[in-house]
Amino acid sequence: MAATSFVEDALRTHRDQIGNVLTRYLPDREPRRWLYDLVATYPSRVGKGIRSSLCVATCRAFGGTTEEAMPSAAAIELLHNAFLVHDDIEDGSLSRRGLPTLHRQHGVPLAVNAGDGLAVVGLSPLRDNVRVLGSVMSERVFDEFQMLLHRTIEGQAIELGWRSENVLELSPVDYLDMVLLKTCSYSTIFPLRIGALIGSWGKADLGPLTRFGFYLGAAFQIRDDLLNLEGRAERYGKEILGDLYEGKRTLMLIHLLSVADEQERAWLDSFLSAARGNRSAEQVQAMLTMMRSHGSIEFAREFSKGVASAAREAFDVAFDGLPPSEDLRFIRELIPYMLDRDL
Amino acid sequence: MAATSFVEDALRTHRDQIGNVLTRYLPDREPRRWLYDLVATYPSRVGKGIRSSLCVATCRAFGGTTEEAMPSAAAIELLHNAFLVHDDIEDGSLSRRGLPTLHRQHGVPLAVNAGDGLAVVGLSPLRDNVRVLGSVMSERVFDEFQMLLHRTIEGQAIELGWRSENVLELSPVDYLDMVLLKTCSYSTIFPLRIGALIGSWGKADLGPLTRFGFYLGAAFQIRDDLLNLEGRAERYGKEILGDLYEGKRTLMLIHLLSVADEQERAWLDSFLSAARGNRSAEQVQAMLTMMRSHGSIEFAREFSKGVASAAREAFDVAFDGLPPSEDLRFIRELIPYMLDRDL
Repeated sequence: MAATSFVEDALRTHRDQIGNVLTRYLPDREPRRWLYDLVATYPSRVGKGIRSSLCVATCRAFGGTTEEAMPSAAAIELLHNAFLVHDDIEDGSLSRRGLPTLHRQHGVPLAVNAGDGLAVVGLSPLRDNVRVLGSVMSERVFDEFQMLLHRTIEGQAIELGWRSENVLELSPVDYLDMVLLKTCSYSTIFPLRIGALIGSWGKADLGPLTRFGFYLGAAFQIRDDLLNLEGRAERYGKEILGDLYEGKRTLMLIHLLSVADEQERAWLDSFLSAARGNRSAEQVQAMLTMMRSHGSIEFAREFSKGVASAAREAFDVAFDGLPPSEDLRFIRELIPYMLDRDL
Repeated sequence: MAATSFVEDALRTHRDQIGNVLTRYLPDREPRRWLYDLVATYPSRVGKGIRSSLCVATCRAFGGTTEEAMPSAAAIELLHNAFLVHDDIEDGSLSRRGLPTLHRQHGVPLAVNAGDGLAVVGLSPLRDNVRVLGSVMSERVFDEFQMLLHRTIEGQAIELGWRSENVLELSPVDYLDMVLLKTCSYSTIFPLRIGALIGSWGKADLGPLTRFGFYLGAAFQIRDDLLNLEGRAERYGKEILGDLYEGKRTLMLIHLLSVADEQERAWLDSFLSAARGNRSAEQVQAMLTMMRSHGSIEFAREFSKGVASAAREAFDVAFDGLPPSEDLRFIRELIPYMLDRDL
């Protein structure tokens, strides 16, 4: 618990700082009602700020300053919010950070456009990097962002493809491959890589950071999937059991599909091939009961402990030789935090 | 007609060249079926190529080379296609370049994501500008692209807002303000500005190009709206009368709303406030008849001639003092081409 509150304190401090920076980037001009008010909606609903604080902390752990990392951290946060707007449309999600999703508030057309607008706003800090880091380093950071964007969109495509074609033959390895792209790229891997690139002024070996980011991000995603089933709605901010309504391929569902008997599998197949609107609360509860009785939730919980243990080993390699610091402690404490967090 | 065929020949030559460049930028890797095949769909349906050829021709008219303009021209074409994917979703459009729109082929979720993917692909050539133009000029070009993206999304927001709130009190000036942002930014103004910026190596005064681009783009959009009513489906590539089904605020509709009698206006209000799916073919035909009997189509045609005349004057200022060239002729001939084109 002490570790968790250390992380939460650090996140809170960081959020105050990045919040001011984000506000500066959000355009204060017309058209407000149909665009820039919508663009500002998700950034103004306070998120956890894990991604941007990871970038800043890594930069400082490698010897850089907050100022050097700040434009990139702001870009990460803004692009993250842009993804959320489109992801919520693509997933048909109902709530985000405790309030209705943007497309439920304004309709799909204006929300798709506002997501595009937020992505363009997210490019501005990358242009500001030139002032802070000079052209050559800014161009290297831009390359990292391009990879981040490509990987994230590729992961989202795979997850949507699984659902749209009702793919059932999936293993935990398929899940990890997808999460590596969809979640880890923008949540952990590239925040770490970009922070280390800037902080070490190009000298850090980024490979081990990718490896650490993969395990850390996978632990984050599995926890997120578990919270969707067992979290408290007022903390979690998204629709509890929404993943089941959406037919999302989580580790629990993949486990359940692999252990279900013939009759259960036929039932799951039929449930998952229905449109979201045709899935009833009773069916969703039946699936949750099935997951519980087959130990699928316990499986995912144990799996995430294994992933966290791999993250601890990868952390030691990725940050080997750096002097101890509060930032380094924050990054290391993020590993148990990922397993315990309730929002 | 000679002028039109000169423009069409030039466009054809340019399309062959840019087509090869675009192909190099489209990722040839997994996931194909759920992402990169979709990303390549619109770029591989041959468009007119007006935007990218305008950028290249302007660069050369100002003394630059094809090579210097090519990455920016490719970015313009790719980002244009990315906008089309999302616009088609936002407008509920059925056809694009003679085939079903991407979201009709693959569903909205995968199409939103593929539009994002195409936008990210469109950023790659901007990074390549560093190799061709050096860092400082590339950064100036990037700033132009950022303005292009902001303006386009702002214009789209206004047009969608008008429809979603069924705004009826609109004048031709409101229409031109919206078209300036939505159409002119990425179709004419920024292709011209970016071409001139590169070709003159930063020396050209970009203000007069913005002015010329505004009139040229407005002529283009009014013609596009007219073709939607009166074009031949096999040339036009989009759904004939689709704008009426979508309730799009065209110059013809704005004119009709301003001259309709009370009863007609009440009918139009009710038609335009219905969901697209509730608008019948009979109603759409009735609206077309109303536009014809009130001279709304003739009004738009005459209006576009006035805009073209302003474009000719603005052309002379924008390109004043440049030596005669085939590129300059192409740009000037685009003005009558905008009025006469049938695709």
